[in-house]
Amino acid sequence: MESWVEIDPKSDFSLATLPFGIVHTPADRSPHAAVAVGSQVLDLKVLSAQPGFFDIFPALHDHPDVFSQPTLNAFAALGRPVHREVRAALQGLLQAGSATTHPAFLRDNSELRAAALFSLFKTHIPMAIGDYTDFYAGVHHARAAGSLFRGADKALMPNYGCLPVAYHGRASSVVVSRTGVQRPWGQILEEPASGVEKTPVPTTAPTRRLDYELELGCLISVPNELGSQVSVESAEEHIFGYVLLNDWSARDIQSWEYVPLGPFNGKNFLTTISPWVVLADALEPFRVPAVSPSEPLQPYLVQSDGATVFDIGLSVDLTTPDGDSTTLTRVSSRNLQWSFPQMIAHHTLGGCPLRTGDLLGSGTISGPKGGSESGCLLEMSQGGKEEVMLYGMDMRTYLKDGDTVTLRGSASHGETSGNGRVGFGECIGRIFSARAPK
Amino acid sequence: MESWVEIDPKSDFSLATLPFGIVHTPADRSPHAAVAVGSQVLDLKVLSAQPGFFDIFPALHDHPDVFSQPTLNAFAALGRPVHREVRAALQGLLQAGSATTHPAFLRDNSELRAAALFSLFKTHIPMAIGDYTDFYAGVHHARAAGSLFRGADKALMPNYGCLPVAYHGRASSVVVSRTGVQRPWGQILEEPASGVEKTPVPTTAPTRRLDYELELGCLISVPNELGSQVSVESAEEHIFGYVLLNDWSARDIQSWEYVPLGPFNGKNFLTTISPWVVLADALEPFRVPAVSPSEPLQPYLVQSDGATVFDIGLSVDLTTPDGDSTTLTRVSSRNLQWSFPQMIAHHTLGGCPLRTGDLLGSGTISGPKGGSESGCLLEMSQGGKEEVMLYGMDMRTYLKDGDTVTLRGSASHGETSGNGRVGFGECIGRIFSARAPK
Repeated sequence: MESWVEIDPKSDFSLATLPFGIVHTPADRSPHAAVAVGSQVLDLKVLSAQPGFFDIFPALHDHPDVFSQPTLNAFAALGRPVHREVRAALQGLLQAGSATTHPAFLRDNSELRAAALFSLFKTHIPMAIGDYTDFYAGVHHARAAGSLFRGADKALMPNYGCLPVAYHGRASSVVVSRTGVQRPWGQILEEPASGVEKTPVPTTAPTRRLDYELELGCLISVPNELGSQVSVESAEEHIFGYVLLNDWSARDIQSWEYVPLGPFNGKNFLTTISPWVVLADALEPFRVPAVSPSEPLQPYLVQSDGATVFDIGLSVDLTTPDGDSTTLTRVSSRNLQWSFPQMIAHHTLGGCPLRTGDLLGSGTISGPKGGSESGCLLEMSQGGKEEVMLYGMDMRTYLKDGDTVTLRGSASHGETSGNGRVGFGECIGRIFSARAPK
Repeated sequence: MESWVEIDPKSDFSLATLPFGIVHTPADRSPHAAVAVGSQVLDLKVLSAQPGFFDIFPALHDHPDVFSQPTLNAFAALGRPVHREVRAALQGLLQAGSATTHPAFLRDNSELRAAALFSLFKTHIPMAIGDYTDFYAGVHHARAAGSLFRGADKALMPNYGCLPVAYHGRASSVVVSRTGVQRPWGQILEEPASGVEKTPVPTTAPTRRLDYELELGCLISVPNELGSQVSVESAEEHIFGYVLLNDWSARDIQSWEYVPLGPFNGKNFLTTISPWVVLADALEPFRVPAVSPSEPLQPYLVQSDGATVFDIGLSVDLTTPDGDSTTLTRVSSRNLQWSFPQMIAHHTLGGCPLRTGDLLGSGTISGPKGGSESGCLLEMSQGGKEEVMLYGMDMRTYLKDGDTVTLRGSASHGETSGNGRVGFGECIGRIFSARAPK
């Protein structure tokens, strides 16, 4: 699908992606909706104010303000058939040559093009997130991390093969890419002095084991009511789209606090998501089977289609304060034991309501080989015991102040670029030092 | 403090309480703010539209609409000095005899009295809750429940004496008193058939171990910014007030799912709070020391005042489908090892933002003696092994369909009734049967 808008063949934002986000532009500084096309954005607020818009986008006729709002929630709530229609209509407007639909509306309208296409813009968090749930569906990560926390024999608990394990995360600290990452203080166990036998004692200090976690995030469109279940087969109709998610973790805080009620301050200081929501339909061409669970599936988790997860190439770069970048992680998102529809069916089994804008994290995604397929430093450094070599001969076990972590993700069939490529753009965070104590 | 409004001496809602809530009335069906006085409500939306209101409530002069909104969030965000001023001014308007302030405004204004005092009203959830966090500060419950889940030697984990253990709860399923409680489906381990040695296998079924949990809930007023800490000494300034909280729990779902990331579907189907927010200032006269933690306090948890929790008499009644009521639990809220200021200081230690309307649960409150001091049936029935006798010779281990659970709480100095009494009213939920499977 070629466009009359210039799109670099290596861009994540081809017409096949056309992700939705919230931006402000030099012309309008109040946050509102846009789609990304190559290195530019097409301003949907401007577009929807243009005469003739609702003839091209009839599904939005009764919802004329959805693109003028500071979040995508109202648009997401319209449901997947509307997202599909709007995406197709936008692709039509932007396609090159004789494939262009309504050429007079945008392509041949230099005034509207000038008013609606921007190279300069700033992204905001795309949705108002009511609740954030983090799953643990990356089976290779669960095994590796469990082994480090509890020993190899207790790495995976007996429930792991039977249900998509999850915990409730913190919605108030979910931020958009490029928000700074302040090293958190926490209560941690002081390591015993080397060579001396003694019991570790708690202290209060900035974390010494700050880590990233590479995840895929799923955003909810249509809500379910309190007390109702979403079946695994209808769950796709509740999915708006996907983002990259960095579930920043303080391993020393986490390991001391997490029994028996799960992670808390080790996680709730920050979670970063990428700004562009890739619609569920855009990922359809990249379906693959999930990793099979070890136990027979309960009926509410059985999906009729075998290709339940996506083969997205994910990567993590670490850039040191000196500016040297190293790709630490390369792994496919197919390394999940549970699909998002299974997570949704499990989450709502007891009637828990998911609301428009709610965020589900996949859990850290690592590959079966560990090493550079590890989705976090905990695994890569074997719990801080092995240093990871960076470009420029620098070393890391965990993150240092001044480090920048960049998640990326894209999918394509065979070709590494070109107009079939669907990508997420970047999910970036730079570490800065802990606040001085009061 | 006597009132010219008739208040039953046994009413929870004396002038010392004057709790804030959201109601609709026969005259105005859009939810808006009110205070409860005896068995009536004083409509604050009506009051604030009356000429002269802002002369009596100057702190609200720049916020004329806070009582017209469908939640108390805007009022809460104004901060504790404003809540204190407004509470005192309302007490003045309502006091009897020569203590009445501005008698012409309300007391002697029969038209306004008729328009603003209602005996018929319906309560709504008082705040929009962004995030809900459930602590585990009831030390006697933590010990008893831990013992049942993990055995007596692992009842309290080593961190329990050092930090206020907590997990993130689910905000979307927090509801107001009198919302029905649908028995949730879940994945549970099937008990092995008696007398036959076999491994339990998972199944999907309505919970067989539905329980209540008696808690105190704390609502946040002034938010803290991402990356900032709230010190334990300034935490009171972030507290709006308190409600009763029933953290409904499905014990069979919880015990199977909760390792290693904590409770999830065992809790997120419903959490009920009482409709009337008792302002923090109203509980000041009832301060007592908390239960001392077993370990030395980290500096960020040290409070200079020794009376850090409240002595509120809490109770739980179970009413069977036949209408027989039994008081199952009687316990004081002083049985907490951690105060709400300590919970807030810990929650924000790493910079996690608390927003206006966020809800913190104390954790289940039980007394040291167990038995009828137990804040849940898990403890009272020793994990379902001992039946609890009810009035009318009925028996329970866990809750049955048709059961109604009513939490109550009140505090007073010596006298069991009268105008110094501060109470919460009721927090009620009735169990109805699980939805038929699809």
